[in-house]
Amino acid sequence: MSDRQIKLVEVGPRDGLQNEQAIPVSAKIQLVNDLTAAGVSYIETGSFVSPKWVPQMADSGDVFAAIERKKGVTYAALTPNLKGFEAARAAAADEVAIFGAASESFSQKNINCSIAESLARFEPVLEAAKAANLKVRGYVSCVLGCPYEGDIAPEQVAWVAEKLFAVGCYEVSLGDTIGVGTPLKAQRMLATVAEKVPMQHLALHFHNTYGQALANIASCLPLGVRTLDSAVAGLGGCPYAKGASGNVASEDVVYMLEGMGYETGIHLPHLISAGQRICASLGQQPRSQVALAEIAKQSNH
Amino acid sequence: MSDRQIKLVEVGPRDGLQNEQAIPVSAKIQLVNDLTAAGVSYIETGSFVSPKWVPQMADSGDVFAAIERKKGVTYAALTPNLKGFEAARAAAADEVAIFGAASESFSQKNINCSIAESLARFEPVLEAAKAANLKVRGYVSCVLGCPYEGDIAPEQVAWVAEKLFAVGCYEVSLGDTIGVGTPLKAQRMLATVAEKVPMQHLALHFHNTYGQALANIASCLPLGVRTLDSAVAGLGGCPYAKGASGNVASEDVVYMLEGMGYETGIHLPHLISAGQRICASLGQQPRSQVALAEIAKQSNH
Repeated sequence: MSDRQIKLVEVGPRDGLQNEQAIPVSAKIQLVNDLTAAGVSYIETGSFVSPKWVPQMADSGDVFAAIERKKGVTYAALTPNLKGFEAARAAAADEVAIFGAASESFSQKNINCSIAESLARFEPVLEAAKAANLKVRGYVSCVLGCPYEGDIAPEQVAWVAEKLFAVGCYEVSLGDTIGVGTPLKAQRMLATVAEKVPMQHLALHFHNTYGQALANIASCLPLGVRTLDSAVAGLGGCPYAKGASGNVASEDVVYMLEGMGYETGIHLPHLISAGQRICASLGQQPRSQVALAEIAKQSNH
Repeated sequence: MSDRQIKLVEVGPRDGLQNEQAIPVSAKIQLVNDLTAAGVSYIETGSFVSPKWVPQMADSGDVFAAIERKKGVTYAALTPNLKGFEAARAAAADEVAIFGAASESFSQKNINCSIAESLARFEPVLEAAKAANLKVRGYVSCVLGCPYEGDIAPEQVAWVAEKLFAVGCYEVSLGDTIGVGTPLKAQRMLATVAEKVPMQHLALHFHNTYGQALANIASCLPLGVRTLDSAVAGLGGCPYAKGASGNVASEDVVYMLEGMGYETGIHLPHLISAGQRICASLGQQPRSQVALAEIAKQSNH
């Protein structure tokens, strides 16, 4: 990859839709196919987790079974345990992902165990993935703030990221789960983590709850990070502030990157169309300024 | 001013409200008073322009007459011609502002004359302001793109900015009128203009139409710019893309700046309340992610 190439990890079908109302499986399949057609090379397609906890993802197996796969595109799944991993394998997911929190309180309240315990719980998944020759991606949540603890020390994030990398995650995605970060804090956090995990193995996963995501990404690009997570149409609300924005919109990220001379391989008008189609299914407007501006411009002509 | 101090120019009551539906004068007065109470030190309070062109600003005189002025706060007015200037003086505006475009096509289509002609037309205003000992602020529009011409050369922006500075504007505000700019272009434009006009006399006036405003501001701060225009609640749509966002929201700017260790003198919760109150008058939601997140958080508690 050249220094101007960015790998975009599209998390709309998983991190996005799991925080939206339930929609028919056909709409999810269409979304993944639309994203593939728009040139997205990595799509987190679903999650194999108990439908008791995340009913929106109960049909992930059906989604994986029906999508049209394109060569070179990675269709990944979140797998919190061995049962989920086996289901992901049965669905022929190309990769799987596990997650840990950078905040002890968040870990306790969210999954009812300490950070160290949560990492230990993933060991069977990591072993099974290794045996099956499947790559594993790791997420760290609350890297720029926690709804219970407030500020999180960059060293704490680095500690969790290092653990995930050490147990075999090829990439660690740093999540500002509640979208409270600002540019200098984002830079400091990324720089601190990069002392423990090489930059080419790190990704940014920023939410736009406080409107800061693009500013944070722009501020971190000079540090060398080249993998970014985003969700088409800004899918996914914020579970800790209902009505607020969730994932940064892929359209807005692609627009910014293109304007800065980076290459994403994504066709922006097709990406906007993909977002419009899924938002029609959800009965809502895209949470992407680029999409809204382009739609408004077209309707004026 | 220390290097960490930012001067925020609140343009909501003028640039914002002139692009919204008409509201009662009492709501405008309340807005200016609320902004004053929130600690805003510079408020563009109205515009003295023909009501044929901008009916939303027809009552600017009444606004100026009724607001409660606080010592140290500047209440400014936009004055496109001598008649407007005299009205602004009669209203006891503290400062006035004039404007030019960086795009010839925009100047022709918007005010029906060339850029050079538009600057010449402001000479009587500048002379009258000098005689009255009133400071004049200058705006340049389309600094990062034009709806008719597309890209605008940074040198063209620098040329117009230099002209406005040379004829006596103490500050030149660089406007991304249609909000299409991205970080590196914004940096390049600002750096080019700063070769002609000293940085301490420049301001950024970015719109958030494509969601890029905060990223552009964050990218320009290291260059030394310390004056930023914004509108509470992101007031003001985009006249060239109906339904799209206008001015960057003051709440989002203040949140970012505080998170970066800059001082604005503004009390963010009061600013959010000011935005909520004017949006209630307009019957719409604030176009500020920070405001939406905070409102959602409170309604969940």
